[in-house]
Amino acid sequence: MFEFKITHSSKNNKARTGRFKTPHGEIQTSVFMPVGTKATVKTLSQNDLKNLDTEIILANTYHLYIRPGEKTIKSMGGLHKWINWDRPILTDSGGFQVFSLAQEKGFTKNKKFKTSVKIDEDGVEFRSHLDGSRHYLTPEKVIKIQHDLGADIIMAFDECAPADSSESYFREAMTRTHNWAEKCENKHEKLLKKQSHKQALFGIVQGGLYKDLRMESAKFINNLNFPGNAIGGLSVGESKDKMLEMIDTTVPHLSKNKPRYLMGVGTPEDILECIERGIDMFDCVHPTRMARHGAFWTNYGRFTIKNEQFKKDPKPLQKNCECHTCQNYCRSYLRHLIFENEILGLRLMTIHNVHFLLNLMREIRARIEKDTFKRFKNDFIKKFKTKNVKI
Amino acid sequence: MFEFKITHSSKNNKARTGRFKTPHGEIQTSVFMPVGTKATVKTLSQNDLKNLDTEIILANTYHLYIRPGEKTIKSMGGLHKWINWDRPILTDSGGFQVFSLAQEKGFTKNKKFKTSVKIDEDGVEFRSHLDGSRHYLTPEKVIKIQHDLGADIIMAFDECAPADSSESYFREAMTRTHNWAEKCENKHEKLLKKQSHKQALFGIVQGGLYKDLRMESAKFINNLNFPGNAIGGLSVGESKDKMLEMIDTTVPHLSKNKPRYLMGVGTPEDILECIERGIDMFDCVHPTRMARHGAFWTNYGRFTIKNEQFKKDPKPLQKNCECHTCQNYCRSYLRHLIFENEILGLRLMTIHNVHFLLNLMREIRARIEKDTFKRFKNDFIKKFKTKNVKI
Repeated sequence: MFEFKITHSSKNNKARTGRFKTPHGEIQTSVFMPVGTKATVKTLSQNDLKNLDTEIILANTYHLYIRPGEKTIKSMGGLHKWINWDRPILTDSGGFQVFSLAQEKGFTKNKKFKTSVKIDEDGVEFRSHLDGSRHYLTPEKVIKIQHDLGADIIMAFDECAPADSSESYFREAMTRTHNWAEKCENKHEKLLKKQSHKQALFGIVQGGLYKDLRMESAKFINNLNFPGNAIGGLSVGESKDKMLEMIDTTVPHLSKNKPRYLMGVGTPEDILECIERGIDMFDCVHPTRMARHGAFWTNYGRFTIKNEQFKKDPKPLQKNCECHTCQNYCRSYLRHLIFENEILGLRLMTIHNVHFLLNLMREIRARIEKDTFKRFKNDFIKKFKTKNVKI
Repeated sequence: MFEFKITHSSKNNKARTGRFKTPHGEIQTSVFMPVGTKATVKTLSQNDLKNLDTEIILANTYHLYIRPGEKTIKSMGGLHKWINWDRPILTDSGGFQVFSLAQEKGFTKNKKFKTSVKIDEDGVEFRSHLDGSRHYLTPEKVIKIQHDLGADIIMAFDECAPADSSESYFREAMTRTHNWAEKCENKHEKLLKKQSHKQALFGIVQGGLYKDLRMESAKFINNLNFPGNAIGGLSVGESKDKMLEMIDTTVPHLSKNKPRYLMGVGTPEDILECIERGIDMFDCVHPTRMARHGAFWTNYGRFTIKNEQFKKDPKPLQKNCECHTCQNYCRSYLRHLIFENEILGLRLMTIHNVHFLLNLMREIRARIEKDTFKRFKNDFIKKFKTKNVKI
C-alpha cells in the first residue's frame, strides 16, 4: 500500500509521472486535487466529479472538526462512506486554517501574531471562526481527528508563520513544525496498529522565504519515515520568482521516490512551472472559487463571462472543450445565469474550470511521457498569456 | 398540432388523463411543470431535469423581459435553443409578476393598489423590481414578447386583483382580463401567420372568490378560441375550501376537450384534490423553494433536514425512493450540506422534491387509468397527514 512508482522521468528537467497507490485506488501524478473544504467540492456532486475524471479530492480537517465534528463523521463510517466517494481523499491537518482563519476574522491581538492564536510547544489554542469557542489542537489530536475522518492521505500538523514574521521567528516555527512532525508520526504509527483502514501520513516542509531554512526543513522532513513530502507556506502572497526559488531550493533535498506535494497552488502557469521543478501533486480553491465569480479559463487565458461581449455569444466557453458545460451551453446563457446569481451558472462554470485543469494535467502527463513537456509548457504559457485575443 | 386527446376519464369524479401535443413533444396529463423563473429551474441543470423525466418546464415572461430582454433570447434562436432544452416550455404572461412583485417591493401607493402599478384599459404601467425603471405592458406587447421567447404554450395577459379588493373591483378586473384575452388572441393569430414556429395561447379565468364572477369568466374565456384554459388568481392566501369551491364552480364551464391548467398550485394534497375536480396541469415554485430551505417530502409528509434527529442518520431522505439523491446520499450528509449552505445540498434536496412530485404525477396517471384514483388519493393524503411518524 501507498507505493509510489515513477513511470517516467524527463531528461532535461525534473518533471516526472508516477502512480501512487492508495486503499481507494491509484492516483496518477502529476495530479491536481479539487478542494472540497467542507467535504463537498463547492457546487459539484460526487457524480459530477467522477464525470470529470477526478482522481482524488481534498477535504479540510479544520472545518470538519468544527462542524459537524469528526466523531459524527466517524460514526457514519468515515468520510468516504458519508459523502459517497469511493476514490482517494486527502485531508489537510488544519494547521493552515487555524492560523489563517484566525487572522482573517480579526480576533484579539496577541504579542506574536495579531490573532488570538496562542502557540506553545505542545500545540495551538485558537477560536472557532463560527462561534469564537476556544479549542486546543495538538499534533496528536490532529492525527487522531484525521484517523477518525479516514482519508487515504493525511497531513502532519504544521505551523504556518505569517509572511511578515522575522527570520528568527520563522526558524522557531520551523523547529516546532519539525517536533510536531515527529509527534505526528509517532501518534500515526500507534493508531494504525489499532485500526483496520490504512492511511498515509505526509510531512510538511516549512521555512518561509529563507533558503537555508527551507533546505534544513526539507532534509529534516525527508529523513522522517513519511511516504510523501509536502511543501507548505508558499503561494501566500510572495512573488512568483520567490516561490519558484524556494521550490528549487527544497526539491533537491526531497527523495525522488516520494511524491512531492505543493500545497495551495493551482493556476495553470504555476502548475506547469512547478511540475518542471519536480512537483507531483497540487491543490487549490482557485479554479472553483473563480468559477463562482464568473471567471473561466481558455487556452488564451482567463476571461469573465460578465463581459458585455458575451451577451449574445452562441459559442461555448472554449472551442472544442469536451466538458459538460461547453457541450451543452452557450456563453450567452451562462452570462445570464451568472448575472442572475443562479446556482446552475455557478455549477456550470465550476465544471468547466475543473475540467480545464484536470484536462491540462492529463495533457501534461502525456507530454512528460513523450519527453515533450518543456516545449508544451512554453507553448501553453505563451498562448495563455496572449493579450487582447478575441475568443 | 396542440391536439388534446383524453386517454381516460374517471367514472365517479372528474379526474382524467390525456396527451397534449406540442412542437417539442407530447405532454402527458396530469402534469406538474417545474418552475424555471429565469429560464433555469433553480439549482437543476437541463440534464438533471431530463434525468427526472420532466416533461415540460415553465419560464417567467416578466423576469426574462426585464433581463436579459426577449430580443436577446430571440437573437439566440429562442428559449429552447438558448437554454438547450428540446422539450416543451410554457411561459406565463407576466401579469401575475407585474402585480405581485410591485406589491412586494412596496412601491409608492396609488389609489387602487397600494403599489405603483397603474392600470388602464389598454395595459399596465409598472416599475421594474430591479431598478425601478418604468415599463408599460399591453396584451399585444405581452404576446409579442412571448412569441419572441418562443415557448410552446403561452399565456394571455390577465389582471390579478389583490385579495382585499371589493367585488366591484374584481368585476372590473375580470372584464378587463376578458377584453385583454380577446386582444391577445387577435395579436397571437396575426403573429402566427408571420412566423415558422407554432405556439398555443391559453386563456386565463379570473373572478376572485366570487362564484358568479368565476362562472361568468369561465364561460367567456372558454368561448374564445383558445386550445387550453387556465384558472388564475387562486392559491393566493385563501382557504383550501374556498379554493376548491372556486374550482368546482369554474370547471363545469370549461370544455372537457381542452386541458385545464390551475396556475400556482403545487403541494401533493392540493394537486390530488384538484385533479379529482378536473384539473390537468399544475405549476408551483413550492417544491424547489422548500428544498432550498432544507424541507423535503416523504410519504409521511414534510420534514426538515435540519432537525437534530437526522445528524447521524445513514438513511436516504425517503426509503425506496429512486431519485439520484436518495440513491447516493444519506440524511446525515445532506443535513451537513444544508447547514453549511453548500450548493450541492440545495441541488440534492431539489432533485428529491421534484422527483417526489413528478413520481406522484406518474402514479396518479396510472391510478386514473386503472379507475382507482379516488382510493389512492384518500390513502395518500391520510398517510401524508400522519403526525409524529418516525421516518
